[in-house]
Amino acid sequence: MLESLKSPAELQKMRLSELKILASEIRHLILETVSKNGGHLAPSLGTVELTLALYSVFNFGKDKIVWDVGHQAYTHKILTGRRDSFHTIRKFGGLTGFPNRSESPYDFFGVGHSSTSISAALGLLLAEEIQNKNGKVIAVIGDGALTGGEAFEALNHAGQLKKNLIVILNDNEMSIAKNVGALSEYLSEVRLNPQYRRAKRDFENFIKNLPISDIGDKILTAANSVRYGLKSAIVPGTIFEALGFTYLGPIDGHDIHIMQDIFSKIKDLDEPILIHVHTTKGKGYKPAENSPEKFHGVGKFNLDTGEIFKKPAPPTYTEIFSKAIVDIARQNKKIVAITAAMPSGTGLKNFSQEFPDRFFDVGIAEEHAVTLAAGMAAGGLRPVVAIYSTFIQRAYDQILHDVCLQKLPVIFCLDRAGLVGEDGATHHGAFDMAFLRTIPNINILAPKDENELRQMFFAAVKQENPVAIRYPRGSGSGAAVDEIPQNLDWGKAEYVKKIDGAAVSIFAVGSMVSVAQEVAQILNFPVNVINARFIKPLDKNILAAETSKLLVTIEEGTLSGGFGAAVAEFLEDENISTRLLRFGIHDKFVEHGTRAELLKLCGLTAEQIANAILGAKG
Amino acid sequence: MLESLKSPAELQKMRLSELKILASEIRHLILETVSKNGGHLAPSLGTVELTLALYSVFNFGKDKIVWDVGHQAYTHKILTGRRDSFHTIRKFGGLTGFPNRSESPYDFFGVGHSSTSISAALGLLLAEEIQNKNGKVIAVIGDGALTGGEAFEALNHAGQLKKNLIVILNDNEMSIAKNVGALSEYLSEVRLNPQYRRAKRDFENFIKNLPISDIGDKILTAANSVRYGLKSAIVPGTIFEALGFTYLGPIDGHDIHIMQDIFSKIKDLDEPILIHVHTTKGKGYKPAENSPEKFHGVGKFNLDTGEIFKKPAPPTYTEIFSKAIVDIARQNKKIVAITAAMPSGTGLKNFSQEFPDRFFDVGIAEEHAVTLAAGMAAGGLRPVVAIYSTFIQRAYDQILHDVCLQKLPVIFCLDRAGLVGEDGATHHGAFDMAFLRTIPNINILAPKDENELRQMFFAAVKQENPVAIRYPRGSGSGAAVDEIPQNLDWGKAEYVKKIDGAAVSIFAVGSMVSVAQEVAQILNFPVNVINARFIKPLDKNILAAETSKLLVTIEEGTLSGGFGAAVAEFLEDENISTRLLRFGIHDKFVEHGTRAELLKLCGLTAEQIANAILGAKG
Repeated sequence: MLESLKSPAELQKMRLSELKILASEIRHLILETVSKNGGHLAPSLGTVELTLALYSVFNFGKDKIVWDVGHQAYTHKILTGRRDSFHTIRKFGGLTGFPNRSESPYDFFGVGHSSTSISAALGLLLAEEIQNKNGKVIAVIGDGALTGGEAFEALNHAGQLKKNLIVILNDNEMSIAKNVGALSEYLSEVRLNPQYRRAKRDFENFIKNLPISDIGDKILTAANSVRYGLKSAIVPGTIFEALGFTYLGPIDGHDIHIMQDIFSKIKDLDEPILIHVHTTKGKGYKPAENSPEKFHGVGKFNLDTGEIFKKPAPPTYTEIFSKAIVDIARQNKKIVAITAAMPSGTGLKNFSQEFPDRFFDVGIAEEHAVTLAAGMAAGGLRPVVAIYSTFIQRAYDQILHDVCLQKLPVIFCLDRAGLVGEDGATHHGAFDMAFLRTIPNINILAPKDENELRQMFFAAVKQENPVAIRYPRGSGSGAAVDEIPQNLDWGKAEYVKKIDGAAVSIFAVGSMVSVAQEVAQILNFPVNVINARFIKPLDKNILAAETSKLLVTIEEGTLSGGFGAAVAEFLEDENISTRLLRFGIHDKFVEHGTRAELLKLCGLTAEQIANAILGAKG
Repeated sequence: MLESLKSPAELQKMRLSELKILASEIRHLILETVSKNGGHLAPSLGTVELTLALYSVFNFGKDKIVWDVGHQAYTHKILTGRRDSFHTIRKFGGLTGFPNRSESPYDFFGVGHSSTSISAALGLLLAEEIQNKNGKVIAVIGDGALTGGEAFEALNHAGQLKKNLIVILNDNEMSIAKNVGALSEYLSEVRLNPQYRRAKRDFENFIKNLPISDIGDKILTAANSVRYGLKSAIVPGTIFEALGFTYLGPIDGHDIHIMQDIFSKIKDLDEPILIHVHTTKGKGYKPAENSPEKFHGVGKFNLDTGEIFKKPAPPTYTEIFSKAIVDIARQNKKIVAITAAMPSGTGLKNFSQEFPDRFFDVGIAEEHAVTLAAGMAAGGLRPVVAIYSTFIQRAYDQILHDVCLQKLPVIFCLDRAGLVGEDGATHHGAFDMAFLRTIPNINILAPKDENELRQMFFAAVKQENPVAIRYPRGSGSGAAVDEIPQNLDWGKAEYVKKIDGAAVSIFAVGSMVSVAQEVAQILNFPVNVINARFIKPLDKNILAAETSKLLVTIEEGTLSGGFGAAVAEFLEDENISTRLLRFGIHDKFVEHGTRAELLKLCGLTAEQIANAILGAKG
């Protein structure tokens, strides 16, 4: 079936039995592929039937769809001309892991970060209307993504405009981890309460008995019946009704037939509609159904057993942080920890188990996470906000306005700083040094290895101002980690290698310190290697001491305003005319691939840097 | 009364009649002061009674309050030790216009940007609890601020935690302008629907008849009665109830007695509570009640007539933009305009009247505004997002991830870029150049005068990539504005003054071009003056042509990563050893005062710059 499918439009003519076969084939292809490539398995398994139902009712030659985050869109990719290339997903030069406008005309809006779909879909819908076109526009958003404030802003706006925006709430009770928040509890109630279940049955019978018609008046009558019928029948939808949406649901997101039925009936209604679909994350693959968080974004695994392949590796930076915060929190009762829906990813699981009253998962709500931390700090606590580098972009204003302007002692632990690999352009932590450096009162640190991460964290807790520590995805070198860290000389860089007569001095940041050491080995003349440690404040003393040499900066972050830029500012301000070579990520977005492939793409391997230094030295 | 008040604690012992006298005296003081200093009049007049009721019930020696935005907190300032210095408000060295932790121990959390109060208050409350203290914490948030997604994120979190957070929804039907969004319509319904009004009366009677008691059990019984009584009686609160809050209201926010009654009864309940208070913006001063938007943030005015004093001045940059977008939109049907609750402030009022179907006020929702624009651009439109420089900080991630990563042709018009004057540290547009410059694919422009703003806007509409134009608050020089702008050479700076034998070359950005011209006049030797026009991309050709001279950059923005930093990067990368002097805002937050006072504070007057150049030239 799947192999003979030429265009997604063919789905509109398929029988239910055929769609069910297709679902099974797609699920098989996703499992085959992700078990080899890694990827967002559980979210994509959960939306196979939903996607098929959508494609069998809507005409995506004309209609448009925006997948929130996009980690659930593998079926969409497979159905829209990417079946044969699906085996390349997340590989360098291959398909991207998320919908991407440059990859397919069916990817109407690029995604990656959460909670943007309703805004984008509303924009697409208004563009249709203003240009006198009449395509339908659909946003598919998870109950996790709905905890992001931007989604609420968009609902509030769309509800007032009263256009025919169709929002599908893909409720699987999860963000990456178990979903949190009052709204999530409310949705649970909607699903579980017998009163609501009865209402749901009534609603389903009601919908089943509606006449189908293409003619306006009749549809409108039906629409109004649906609307007003529901208002009284289904209490749970009131939160969405209050925001101006007609609410339908909850319905079974693995029953293609009932979804087709409802989608057909609502597609021509002239009002904003929210359809609450209940799905199972990981559907159809028992290991993923049983451990949806583990199989949310997963590496290679054994398809038969569900065993995830792990190469033996040193502890990850995440694990080092995970232990450090627990150790510190045992001594310091003011330490509290905040995550935005990533208790495992950020390494706060152990903390949450040992200190449940001092642990806060706020949902996918980075803005609130940061201001909450500011409030806690103003109240005398020492909050630690653990958020990936790419997602802290959401809270630039809160870091500036709520934390740094008030000089509150909040510690930001920014995991996944630098190139993250297969998740690609939307997820690289390429900007944190550059945008955080614009903000007064903050200190920004990056450890050269695992031991230094622990050392920095212990030192950060003693500071009275905002501190950000950025560290990369995955394992470091396996450095031995001191249980009791040595004191960190705050604001000071350190010589990793200092040689008399060195003509080149390399200042490297975090992950690039080991690369700098390799560079020094490759070069056949004396080179000093300095671990910058601090992106802000710069250690001006050590810089000033090295200015008789060719200066080199290496950072896993954008060159535009980053660490090397800070050094350039220093040299210009101090009127020091030594030569500076800056290595980092150039002023463009970096695609996906392995970290090694991407470092090479960015000219950040030791060989590339050594060659460039040799070229400059002449 | 007011003069004899020594501590806000005295309010707890005052009789209602005394509080009413106090209200009148406070209102008089606010009117007197703001008519001379300018300030946030209408919001502060609306909360006089609310503030008095709060201070008469709560003990803010122990309890804490966070005022959202803080433009309504003048009564709070007056009551907390700042009556005598109130006449200095918004003046250089005087009181700040917003609550500020460094100004008073009663300012528990600094504010300025919208929608942070619930997050901060929840943080303060958790800090109380974790440290075994038991102060109550209150957030006062307007219905406008409630349209910001961060407020929703905080409600969603607080509703799940089930702590005794008290949120007061100060509903005056306004943000700065008339409030928008489905939630706002819903609140109107709550206030106006007779069914709700009846429920409200029932509720008020119910509350009045409750026994007051300080003893736990009885209060709890009362609490439960309140809670369950309300659940069935007052339908409108369901949206807040669904988010885990007990909803009370709407009640009259100018009736001190009823507010006292309710605050006393709920203050010891162990659950999140939202009290919906209905107030009148500008209350007690007819001109402000009649034109609350005009008197939201106002300059000096005639207290008797309400006439706002206006010095004769050339058109503001806002007015130039206002006309330009209307003129362009008449020719180009793809132009749409988006504001985040500032149709007047950003100059979109005329546009909204001429093109109502292409105008979108999304509420205080900068994140949604930007992604909505991205969606519109992906759908073929040419969206113009008009947001103040300081508020666009809220949408850094959306600009990066939704607009620039997809290289969508969205135009950002950033008014109030640079030092804004009396609103102070929370509102200066000091960071936009620095943080936007970190993002690939965007072009950033700043006009030297009003004519160039029009020229830049006309040129921006023709670009196929994201563009930001930043321009200052207020009037320019009164430059003549060409109806049909000359073509702008995209990416090119221009010589404003070019002299053979010049030893100094000044690159100035936007508002600083005229200052640079003054500098050139002061210096007694030949100086080239260049209008940078583009912060990104840099015009490297003109820079390269000037490198035999002492280079000077002047910008009204942070030096840390800003325009001068970009020039420093260029010089270092090109190995050009000419001297560079950078003038701009140093790496700290700038207080409030007149623009002239602040420019001097930052060393940005022509005299200061000229002297520094002379010093450097030796």
